[in-house]
Amino acid sequence: MGKGTLLYAQSGGVTAVINATAGAVIQAARAHRVKALAARNGILGVLREELVDTSKETAAAIRGLAHTPGGAFGSCRYKLKSLEDDAAKYARVLEVLKAHDVRWFLYNGGNDSADTALKLSQLAKASGYPLTCIGVPKTVDNDLVVTDCCPGFGSAAKYTAVSVAEAALDVAAMADTSTKVFVYEVMGRHAGWLAAAAGLAGEGKDSAPHIILFPEVPWDEAAFLARVKATVERVGHCVVVVSEGLRHADGRFVADAGGKDAFGHSQLGGVGPALAAIVKDALGLKVHWTVPDYLQRSARHLASKTDLAHAQAVGKAAVEYALKGLNGVMPVIVRTSDSPYRWKVAPAPLTGIANQEKKMPRGFISRDGYGITAACRRYLTPLIRGEAPPPYRPDGLPDYVQLKLQPVPKKLPKFG
Amino acid sequence: MGKGTLLYAQSGGVTAVINATAGAVIQAARAHRVKALAARNGILGVLREELVDTSKETAAAIRGLAHTPGGAFGSCRYKLKSLEDDAAKYARVLEVLKAHDVRWFLYNGGNDSADTALKLSQLAKASGYPLTCIGVPKTVDNDLVVTDCCPGFGSAAKYTAVSVAEAALDVAAMADTSTKVFVYEVMGRHAGWLAAAAGLAGEGKDSAPHIILFPEVPWDEAAFLARVKATVERVGHCVVVVSEGLRHADGRFVADAGGKDAFGHSQLGGVGPALAAIVKDALGLKVHWTVPDYLQRSARHLASKTDLAHAQAVGKAAVEYALKGLNGVMPVIVRTSDSPYRWKVAPAPLTGIANQEKKMPRGFISRDGYGITAACRRYLTPLIRGEAPPPYRPDGLPDYVQLKLQPVPKKLPKFG
Repeated sequence: MGKGTLLYAQSGGVTAVINATAGAVIQAARAHRVKALAARNGILGVLREELVDTSKETAAAIRGLAHTPGGAFGSCRYKLKSLEDDAAKYARVLEVLKAHDVRWFLYNGGNDSADTALKLSQLAKASGYPLTCIGVPKTVDNDLVVTDCCPGFGSAAKYTAVSVAEAALDVAAMADTSTKVFVYEVMGRHAGWLAAAAGLAGEGKDSAPHIILFPEVPWDEAAFLARVKATVERVGHCVVVVSEGLRHADGRFVADAGGKDAFGHSQLGGVGPALAAIVKDALGLKVHWTVPDYLQRSARHLASKTDLAHAQAVGKAAVEYALKGLNGVMPVIVRTSDSPYRWKVAPAPLTGIANQEKKMPRGFISRDGYGITAACRRYLTPLIRGEAPPPYRPDGLPDYVQLKLQPVPKKLPKFG
Repeated sequence: MGKGTLLYAQSGGVTAVINATAGAVIQAARAHRVKALAARNGILGVLREELVDTSKETAAAIRGLAHTPGGAFGSCRYKLKSLEDDAAKYARVLEVLKAHDVRWFLYNGGNDSADTALKLSQLAKASGYPLTCIGVPKTVDNDLVVTDCCPGFGSAAKYTAVSVAEAALDVAAMADTSTKVFVYEVMGRHAGWLAAAAGLAGEGKDSAPHIILFPEVPWDEAAFLARVKATVERVGHCVVVVSEGLRHADGRFVADAGGKDAFGHSQLGGVGPALAAIVKDALGLKVHWTVPDYLQRSARHLASKTDLAHAQAVGKAAVEYALKGLNGVMPVIVRTSDSPYRWKVAPAPLTGIANQEKKMPRGFISRDGYGITAACRRYLTPLIRGEAPPPYRPDGLPDYVQLKLQPVPKKLPKFG
């Protein structure tokens, strides 16, 4: 292949399989004999000229990325603003890319990263520098538009469905004399995809989860409490799944309790403990709650095989699109059949993806607002199908890899 | 074998493998051609004469118990008091056992259940009724004395070590621009065994978890905050594992914040969010926290193979001891070698086990109080070794079994 370097970077919250995408990118670059660098901590590593030479990593380590959670090169929560507002930073990025002969930039992230990749592709074109920018999808929130689903979501969804199913068996066994109501808080500030995934744990109104609270459905406290009470009376217990983004009808987050404890410390409570307290105070029932937090997006031990395949496929396609010069696109997942599940990867313009957000369609939420529909189940089920466990070490822990992360010597003065 | 019925019941918090013990009990009874009943919800099912005929369950369903979490027959948090204080209840229990010709009673639980089994064995002997009572060990807290470890603990320990390792990779990847301190709350009101298990996630002071807070070590807020600060400065981030039972030097639980939120609702916060708030207020660092709660004791998908073997072995031994008439004993795990790990099951008198509690030995906690020693690691590692995943269904969820639970017709009038 032609001269030039490929640069890969990770952005936003990590997932159980973002490193699988990274591994596929590096393997594809190696197959095409293209030099591949990676930036530390996303676009910040480009600004700081903190680049890593992936050729120093063994083939075994790169293979190992497929079963290693976290973000092997470091990720970032850092968004470049408009080309005008952050002109100096965009100029610096371009300068660093030029200094290392980067002709292909692959940015692996969500909406914001797609926006950064898009802006960079526009800037390079305007300045006459031959740079192909690709956005590579990733997010447990599943909120990217155009793509049928986002790599990372399927594994978080499987973790959620399995964990809710397991905890529900625990609660059912204990409810006679102990916990009657169990509240499970899932991620999803704006979109209820992970909350919906919990619905795969059971089917029918007497199966857990008995109540799902979506950010898309304004919360009605009285109706909710009546539903909890009725479920406990009918089933003996009640499993509630709540999205962190649950809101009151006036738009306030239910999690924003804003209180202080007896010592004057801030309360960093999520919506899970807040709802648990409300149920306990109103109904006098014993309540337990869980907030899995980062566990749900790092549980590589319980990854979905389908999700892993998606993550690897978009990585491989991203390199192919880049080398073909498909500038300003993202490899997206296209579903061609629900059953049997069939899918392919296709390029989609970043202009239609950047800065947009896909919420749950109303047809995926049951009429009463507390569960998922058959259409939602048809959509979700293939995404959590199949297991892809990591290898385990003799000491009982997964054999996750640690890269060498050998720095590329800097060629430019420090920025800023 | 002789005439008579065996009765099995589950008590206290369930575990990922208590049903594996139940399955082994029923399989052993079947092998000995002994009729096996099970009580619903532990000793309460005996008082209420709510018994289940296990002979109605298929061999496949009984095999499936080995990979199904929760408590298949229902468990209970209900402790009978002394023989004097609860004389009528003990008499009722004996009456129910006699009515169903129960000659062997196996009570699967922790300290309290061992006490109930012991008292019942004494009462039966005093009243001349030929009853053999066996306590069968189970608890994620690992706090039973005499036995080297408790079935249920190894799987919760593996879940904890793996989850901490995974979340730590997430935090490490994001720390540059996002969460710097991550707080992971584990179960263990009085004993720090699960907190210690988190220590298996890494080794060395720069590996997560960087700080473990045990219930056995009084909490010093200033020293803790200094340690967090130093760790973030040195490593870039800090993973803290805290036991729910962490106490101040004066004995108060740190979790007892006792506050109200802005709406006047009770705060059901655990120690995890409380510590997170303290770190945020004192150090101004971005903090995230997780409370896995029941997930840690129901995560059969991540069970330890060693733990599963223990759970099945104590179930089988319990039936053998019962049929031999070894009254008032518990089958305990005896470790004969650390490396290679070797163990066996032996009978131990309930008199030495009931109502006692095994805390972490001081030699298992590092001198600074924030980590585990090599001796602790030697003790814990074999317990999380090996994987024993459940079979999965085509829809991506584990194939957990649901028993028929066919009731045995009642022979006595209602009690109480």
